[in-house]
Amino acid sequence: MSENNTIGAKALIDTLTNAGIEVCFTNPGTSEMHFVSELDNSNMKAVLCLFEGVATGAADGYARIADKPAATLLHLGCGLGNGLANLHNAKKARVPMINIVGDHATYHTKYDAPLQSDIETVAKNFSKWIRTTQETSQIGKDAAEAIKVATGTPAQISTLILAADVSWNKGGVAETDFSIPKAPLTSAENLEQIAKVLKEEGKKTLILLGRRVLKEEGLLAAAKIAEKCGAKLLTETFPTRLQRGAGVPYVERLAYFAEMASVQLEGYNHMILIDTKAPVTFFAYPGKKGYLVPDGCTLHSLVTEQEDALGSIQALVEAVGAIDISPKLQEAKRPSLPTGKLNGEKAAQAIGALLPENAIISDEAQTSGVKIPAHTAGAPKHDILTLTGGAIGQALPVALGAAMADRNRPVLALVGDGSSMYTIQTLWSIVAENLDVTTVIFNNASYSILNIELERVGAKNAGPKAKAQLDISTPGLDFVSLAKGMGMPGVRVTTAEEFNEALEKAFREKGPFLIDAVVPSEYEGFKLKALPYVLGALDKIPNSIAKAIKNKIAP
Amino acid sequence: MSENNTIGAKALIDTLTNAGIEVCFTNPGTSEMHFVSELDNSNMKAVLCLFEGVATGAADGYARIADKPAATLLHLGCGLGNGLANLHNAKKARVPMINIVGDHATYHTKYDAPLQSDIETVAKNFSKWIRTTQETSQIGKDAAEAIKVATGTPAQISTLILAADVSWNKGGVAETDFSIPKAPLTSAENLEQIAKVLKEEGKKTLILLGRRVLKEEGLLAAAKIAEKCGAKLLTETFPTRLQRGAGVPYVERLAYFAEMASVQLEGYNHMILIDTKAPVTFFAYPGKKGYLVPDGCTLHSLVTEQEDALGSIQALVEAVGAIDISPKLQEAKRPSLPTGKLNGEKAAQAIGALLPENAIISDEAQTSGVKIPAHTAGAPKHDILTLTGGAIGQALPVALGAAMADRNRPVLALVGDGSSMYTIQTLWSIVAENLDVTTVIFNNASYSILNIELERVGAKNAGPKAKAQLDISTPGLDFVSLAKGMGMPGVRVTTAEEFNEALEKAFREKGPFLIDAVVPSEYEGFKLKALPYVLGALDKIPNSIAKAIKNKIAP
Repeated sequence: MSENNTIGAKALIDTLTNAGIEVCFTNPGTSEMHFVSELDNSNMKAVLCLFEGVATGAADGYARIADKPAATLLHLGCGLGNGLANLHNAKKARVPMINIVGDHATYHTKYDAPLQSDIETVAKNFSKWIRTTQETSQIGKDAAEAIKVATGTPAQISTLILAADVSWNKGGVAETDFSIPKAPLTSAENLEQIAKVLKEEGKKTLILLGRRVLKEEGLLAAAKIAEKCGAKLLTETFPTRLQRGAGVPYVERLAYFAEMASVQLEGYNHMILIDTKAPVTFFAYPGKKGYLVPDGCTLHSLVTEQEDALGSIQALVEAVGAIDISPKLQEAKRPSLPTGKLNGEKAAQAIGALLPENAIISDEAQTSGVKIPAHTAGAPKHDILTLTGGAIGQALPVALGAAMADRNRPVLALVGDGSSMYTIQTLWSIVAENLDVTTVIFNNASYSILNIELERVGAKNAGPKAKAQLDISTPGLDFVSLAKGMGMPGVRVTTAEEFNEALEKAFREKGPFLIDAVVPSEYEGFKLKALPYVLGALDKIPNSIAKAIKNKIAP
Repeated sequence: MSENNTIGAKALIDTLTNAGIEVCFTNPGTSEMHFVSELDNSNMKAVLCLFEGVATGAADGYARIADKPAATLLHLGCGLGNGLANLHNAKKARVPMINIVGDHATYHTKYDAPLQSDIETVAKNFSKWIRTTQETSQIGKDAAEAIKVATGTPAQISTLILAADVSWNKGGVAETDFSIPKAPLTSAENLEQIAKVLKEEGKKTLILLGRRVLKEEGLLAAAKIAEKCGAKLLTETFPTRLQRGAGVPYVERLAYFAEMASVQLEGYNHMILIDTKAPVTFFAYPGKKGYLVPDGCTLHSLVTEQEDALGSIQALVEAVGAIDISPKLQEAKRPSLPTGKLNGEKAAQAIGALLPENAIISDEAQTSGVKIPAHTAGAPKHDILTLTGGAIGQALPVALGAAMADRNRPVLALVGDGSSMYTIQTLWSIVAENLDVTTVIFNNASYSILNIELERVGAKNAGPKAKAQLDISTPGLDFVSLAKGMGMPGVRVTTAEEFNEALEKAFREKGPFLIDAVVPSEYEGFKLKALPYVLGALDKIPNSIAKAIKNKIAP
């Protein structure tokens, strides 16, 4: 028997690439140097990130578009910790991901060296599966298990912790078998029960769509059911990936603000959840309801997370006799180009007017973006990726990962100024990889959403010290300079005409470009009586309902 | 009995300020809005940070200079997670800190809303004390306990988790008692035993100094003992705060590289640890020793972490009869200003030549900084704060915190380009607070230390893909533009003359300034045979030893 000279790191990379995992977002240190040195003997593409939150968010964005995991390569507990917020978002997005985390050599941990920490504890919050590989001979097997868990149903995050000596010792064996059982459909009984609800006469039924049924095939199935049975469709507030635009069934999103969401949900007798949870508010507010299912509305759920959501909704099409229905598809329709002083709505109009075919939008535009859904509804077919876990600083990394997943699709990152600064280092990797990503920063010089939240939680006594905590105007952030610092060209715009021109140019010329879009903080001094304005965010809300809301909440 | 209308957030802030904790580094969200709104009714100074790692690192730097804790204000598990790396560094620095982390309202957690996560688990790695306050009436008591743990011996990190409703409900009571027991001295037996070791004839004894004995008083005591007993002094490699410069006893630091450290430690019969641990390498390397105490050297430890380190070393002065010794103090001596093309050593010379009186240096200059200790040894008295936990991205936040702790002292942040990018958002807060911080970025366009580590771990096959993981030259980082983007003036320099001029101006004019110092990556293609060069970093290493090392490691 010949000696096995394969080091652990090589067995690991080969196992990953055997499973089709060929992109890795990295921020390595000393304990990952053997992985790094084996890159040249592999098909693994490693994308260097200057901060770990960029790497983890990028792996999330990659998975959303590629429908398969990327790996991350992170340095001990602190590196993994720096990636935690975007790992949280990825967990809530239910994407597959494999974190590779280097650790001190097994015989070194007893010394409690400076970087020593409890990596497994750091990994707990977001990982379905955590393992510290003990022997080099096990590395391939452990990696294969990590991959199987990640790519199962539901998709999950696996974290594989590798001591430096486990990586550098010989005796590694790459795995090739990654087969996992096919996820089952929902039971015949449940299908029948839900079909019965849908066919019931004289009842109002809402179908709330989530995660895995938000791509064209799932939306088409849902639209057939809705049309056949007279049900209303909504999607969850923050979809992992929503396909939309001309030719795709149009489905409104549940609003972020409870005041609006409760209007959308009012009056239904049944709510059918398809791969999502019963709607709740993002935060609690004093004296307000957090659970948004109306009293007297009966909940049903088509699938568990372990079941095949797309297959089940297609089975439901059949069960309600909707196979031959041709549902209404969104017609192609673009807004006209805006003019005058720029604001969030005009930016949305310009985006709707200019969005290229097959684009990917990574959306964390926050308060400046409320009109984007309405104005892009009839734009060419596109995907929108949203802030699934609420931890801001996601949109830039997700845009990076999405662009790596498909270099032929234009990517548009829409980001609030406050949000962008958590992971601004992403711009460097976008330039390094020369990706076709257009970044729009909505620069209103404030954490605008917090001005609203401050009112909503009923916090009193907000004086100058409190307001300074929501204000990022002093010093003002100059995103053109920040981009230039990382090699990205950009322009600052203050009028709609300038924005139109910059956006058109950014879409026409491939490669990275940033637009620093100066917009007013529209919600400054926000009061509940301003909600009718906010309601404009609900695209296509029937006039009757809009009027009812205005009557209800006007001062 | 009148109703108690004090809300929880108010009781918390009052408890903190009653304990003298009057600075808070913040990145709040919705669940912390009541804390924010109460700021105006308090003496609490809140410093807004654009990323949580800035806030936690700043609280660390603040504590190092102020000798008392700052608070942080962070948003749920993800906000705390973003702060993890610098909390790890702060834990290893043994500084006091109080984290205030908002959570969802108690009755909202059951809904598993998007930002829901297990905050206590996130807090485990770095917190000595963790509590989730259950009732508003308890908030003052819990905060007082957090403060007592943080300010005890040893100093620690406390994490107090507050549900939004616990903060906004009425019935809060601020605490005023924060008394803690005085830390004891080491036992008489241990003192006697160590004094005996020191007085032993014919044996070589090394005293390794750490944490709490590295300020002038402790160093003076150590120098008296060393001079009286003929012992050698060294400090740990990465001190939390080391006072040095003209008029202070000079003590060399233990080197980072094991190859150098083992030379420093060679030949001693006894090693006396004073508030530090037995020296180990930062990382393990194949086939090399991680434990640096030489064979046959006997270890002794003067104090436990729970004992009074400064008091105990002063008792040891008495025990060895060194009270009347006047130890040698560092003489005032500055290098001359350098000329020609800039490199790390010339920058160090300029810093030594120009450093103002009473400066604070926050040092994460990495490979570019190896000559700084040598060239600043005779500069006016100053403090140096170093990377205690090895998680890079610390120096800028620590500089921010140090400057907030004492606005009258000039602060100099020395940072590698790679390191700086983890927490580059710090520049904004430095400008917002108009602090007298001069930032020098050593821009060698690479993770230079990793080029060395790649060699040291014996990683083979490093081809272009591997090397690209250590290279940040494409695109090149332009730190003047990055600074400008956050409102900070700066200049790029490539010659020593330009560096001298920029540094002199930065020290002369108060306020924030950045120097983008373009230096060569001196360790590119580093080989072990290059170590004699590195050895220059050991300031004042005796020629005989330097020669011995050269003989030992030359190829």
